[in-house]
Amino acid sequence: MVVISKSLRISSSSNFQIIDITRDIVDILNEINEENKMGNGIVNIFTKHSTSSIRVNENEKGLLMDFEKALKGVVKEKDNYKHNFIDNNAASHIKAFFLGASESIPIVEGRLDLGTWQSIFFIELDGPRSNRTVDLTFIGE
Amino acid sequence: MVVISKSLRISSSSNFQIIDITRDIVDILNEINEENKMGNGIVNIFTKHSTSSIRVNENEKGLLMDFEKALKGVVKEKDNYKHNFIDNNAASHIKAFFLGASESIPIVEGRLDLGTWQSIFFIELDGPRSNRTVDLTFIGE
Amino acid sequence: MVVISKSLRISSSSNFQIIDITRDIVDILNEINEENKMGNGIVNIFTKHSTSSIRVNENEKGLLMDFEKALKGVVKEKDNYKHNFIDNNAASHIKAFFLGASESIPIVEGRLDLGTWQSIFFIELDGPRSNRTVDLTFIGE
Repeated sequence: MVVISKSLRISSSSNFQIIDITRDIVDILNEINEENKMGNGIVNIFTKHSTSSIRVNENEKGLLMDFEKALKGVVKEKDNYKHNFIDNNAASHIKAFFLGASESIPIVEGRLDLGTWQSIFFIELDGPRSNRTVDLTFIGE
Repeated sequence: MVVISKSLRISSSSNFQIIDITRDIVDILNEINEENKMGNGIVNIFTKHSTSSIRVNENEKGLLMDFEKALKGVVKEKDNYKHNFIDNNAASHIKAFFLGASESIPIVEGRLDLGTWQSIFFIELDGPRSNRTVDLTFIGE
Repeated sequence: MVVISKSLRISSSSNFQIIDITRDIVDILNEINEENKMGNGIVNIFTKHSTSSIRVNENEKGLLMDFEKALKGVVKEKDNYKHNFIDNNAASHIKAFFLGASESIPIVEGRLDLGTWQSIFFIELDGPRSNRTVDLTFIGE
């Protein structure tokens, strides 16, 4: 049995940004495989920030812009939010509330078992930020 | 400790379809129990397609129609989506982006610990399709 | 390897209520640590009710009111829902359908690895109720 905790450091460069972290996770999984031979299991991907999210979808440039537009259509930027008296980012929190903080992805025979058109995204909803952390927990055998 | 990777093949018959996969998962868990005696743990349920989703809710015929209507109210079918220049299914991707790709369900004493009114759904958002795959990862002891 | 199944009993006092369950989960993790020395892993948090949800975000009083308002803006209370002929709570189910039933949180060196501003919430969408159950499954080593 293998349980391995890792983390990714992420910097964002704009207020809203979809960052593809698939490659980073695959690289870490490959390092793990060199030593531990992880066969089957899962990796839990969790963002430590309540104005960001983890999602799995297709990395197509136009589609990423569609996601942003759709999200802004659902969550108004300003709406007399009470949290804005404390910190001017209620809309960012609400978007994260709808999208969720984690996803768990299967690992089969040592490889992330994503579909052909799936990538793993860190969704920045309140950037730019220089110190975002995403936890990765690999569990398997 | 037990880690077992399985998958379900699913065919959908319409563009939007909520398919109850609870029975299929219970059947696989029962097979696992016959041999491995899995007591407590979780099963991670993950769809390998970015125009579909996994959700847990009540399987009541009228409610399933309400889910469809609500989802279509939130995500417009046409909205000058950029992805539609590539592939005419942006709305399907956006719905999946909102709903999410995975859920993890507890297993207690060898049984899925769902509530009385809970079923596990594969949500087809871009059907009909004949070759959908859902990964199941059972982890426990 | 450690797999431990626990559950929380929750009572809600209003129709919509965001209940912070972080402290309850930390208390249970501390008890587990006293005996089993759980180092790294995850805890899966799953609500057994299809008119409730689990979410991770910031516990700021004004923000919790913003979440409620935003959710009610996205899901109409009445919209000729078909489920309301069976049970008058379609809007509660639809909100849960959008938000999701589970989150998995990393445990690092025996502690929940939440970010500074993150709390774990049970979201009551159809209260008040006296017998809500949330399953916790700790997996690690």
